[in-house]
Amino acid sequence: MLRYHLGWEDAEGRPAESTGKRLRPALCLLACEAAGGQAERAIPFASAVELVHNFSLVHDDVQDGDRLRHGRDTVWSVWGKSQAINAGDALLALAHIALAETPHESTAAASRLLNELTLEMVEGQVMDIAFEEQTDVSLDAYLAMISRKTGALFDAALALGAVAAGAPAEMVAALGRCGRQLGLAFQVRDDMLGIWGDVDRTGKPVAADIHRRKKSLPIVFALERAEGDDLERLQGMYGAGEPSAGDVAFVVGLLDSLGAQAYSQEEADRHRTAALSELTDADLDERAAAEIREVADFLLERDF
Amino acid sequence: MLRYHLGWEDAEGRPAESTGKRLRPALCLLACEAAGGQAERAIPFASAVELVHNFSLVHDDVQDGDRLRHGRDTVWSVWGKSQAINAGDALLALAHIALAETPHESTAAASRLLNELTLEMVEGQVMDIAFEEQTDVSLDAYLAMISRKTGALFDAALALGAVAAGAPAEMVAALGRCGRQLGLAFQVRDDMLGIWGDVDRTGKPVAADIHRRKKSLPIVFALERAEGDDLERLQGMYGAGEPSAGDVAFVVGLLDSLGAQAYSQEEADRHRTAALSELTDADLDERAAAEIREVADFLLERDF
Repeated sequence: MLRYHLGWEDAEGRPAESTGKRLRPALCLLACEAAGGQAERAIPFASAVELVHNFSLVHDDVQDGDRLRHGRDTVWSVWGKSQAINAGDALLALAHIALAETPHESTAAASRLLNELTLEMVEGQVMDIAFEEQTDVSLDAYLAMISRKTGALFDAALALGAVAAGAPAEMVAALGRCGRQLGLAFQVRDDMLGIWGDVDRTGKPVAADIHRRKKSLPIVFALERAEGDDLERLQGMYGAGEPSAGDVAFVVGLLDSLGAQAYSQEEADRHRTAALSELTDADLDERAAAEIREVADFLLERDF
Repeated sequence: MLRYHLGWEDAEGRPAESTGKRLRPALCLLACEAAGGQAERAIPFASAVELVHNFSLVHDDVQDGDRLRHGRDTVWSVWGKSQAINAGDALLALAHIALAETPHESTAAASRLLNELTLEMVEGQVMDIAFEEQTDVSLDAYLAMISRKTGALFDAALALGAVAAGAPAEMVAALGRCGRQLGLAFQVRDDMLGIWGDVDRTGKPVAADIHRRKKSLPIVFALERAEGDDLERLQGMYGAGEPSAGDVAFVVGLLDSLGAQAYSQEEADRHRTAALSELTDADLDERAAAEIREVADFLLERDF
């Protein structure tokens, strides 16, 4: 199940091509270099972060009932939900085995940090699922949720890179904050692609997140800004079952008239700017910092 | 959710009485003393083991669809399966935060051991769920499964106690093996109570595990020993849906005629004897070792 999920094998155990963007481990290695360390030292921590991320994906697919990820059947849709819960649990245990594989003086600090940020990520997941039952989710509450659900592990990725480099606490914290903001920018972009993404690039249906009645940022924005009949219809839709084709077209039009796409793009830019200012303030290796800036650009421009 | 599950609060957040036997942490502290350490030193490790145990219970209830545990609603039956998955995940992250709360020189070794045995426990859970689909589970395969599913965490409890005491590797391994055998004895006794337990003491219905078509030790034994029509009916029942009252009575009678209860008791005794011989061979504090023997007696005599 784990090799399948990680994209190394197909469901019959035959070799397959790896999928996934491997963003978090890449950022972990870059943060290590930015903090003046050799990237190699951060490999156990980068592996651990990627395994924690994959643990969360496997459980998330069970929770959301999603049958496809990157165009492949999810673990639960092949092996059932009970075994998929086990697969996620195993990935979390393996993350910590990977982290401690070549123990050195910073392993204990890395382990503590990763556990605390994993706990925060799970809190974000708890909030996200609780929001499904609420029609009055505020933008602030939404941003607090994605800061945990997505931001915490990007925070971990960069902070652990700095820890691997033996960086001072201040630099670890600054790179962690940079990661947190990159995670927020990444999630906002993800929310945009879930509504306005190109079917051929994302592998998801048009307006996928509207069909799933997912309260992503553009929808939370619309729930705060819409008025009168529009608000009533929107609230009704997000409190009820499967939306009709007319419902989806209505939401797409409403988001357009409220300027939800421009608002979301500004929000993503705001978080990228905050991330980059953390890099400027810290005393970092310039070449590695420039590569982190390139990743930040990719996060906001990507269409998949 | 976590306070509720641990028995500290009711579902509305009002204080409640703790439930659970707290066997694993008790054994962890005793093992620390048996290895010549102060029990206090093992408290973070004992807490971690108990939290890992509770993580597994919360996920297990989701997987089995069990609505009750110790006469209380399970986490998923109060908050839903998605949130219960999160609750379990959080308990696993918290276990490792607890383990490292007062870091000392043995924390890294303890963390590695706990992660490896947690992974083994999850493998046991994978096997257990896979067995549900099989009618040809052998006694050997069953014992290999419970050695992982239940034995691994008892192994961790005693081994971590020894690690906390700074015991030599040999003593850590011997206490771990003692724990593993105690876990096997505990699980076999649990399997017996699931069929022949006293309703008033266990809080479970008569022959609960037969109604649930759980392939516990007495059933695996019967599947190996039964012949002809009996075997056919038994296999048919364990491959099909809800058993009838007649089916349950048939299984109870068949187990009786095959001597499944005596076989199970011998199996439990065998594991207890193996556990106690590990205590004799190692050079332990006599008072603490005697208390571990008392726990072993309790494990086999308990009727709840």
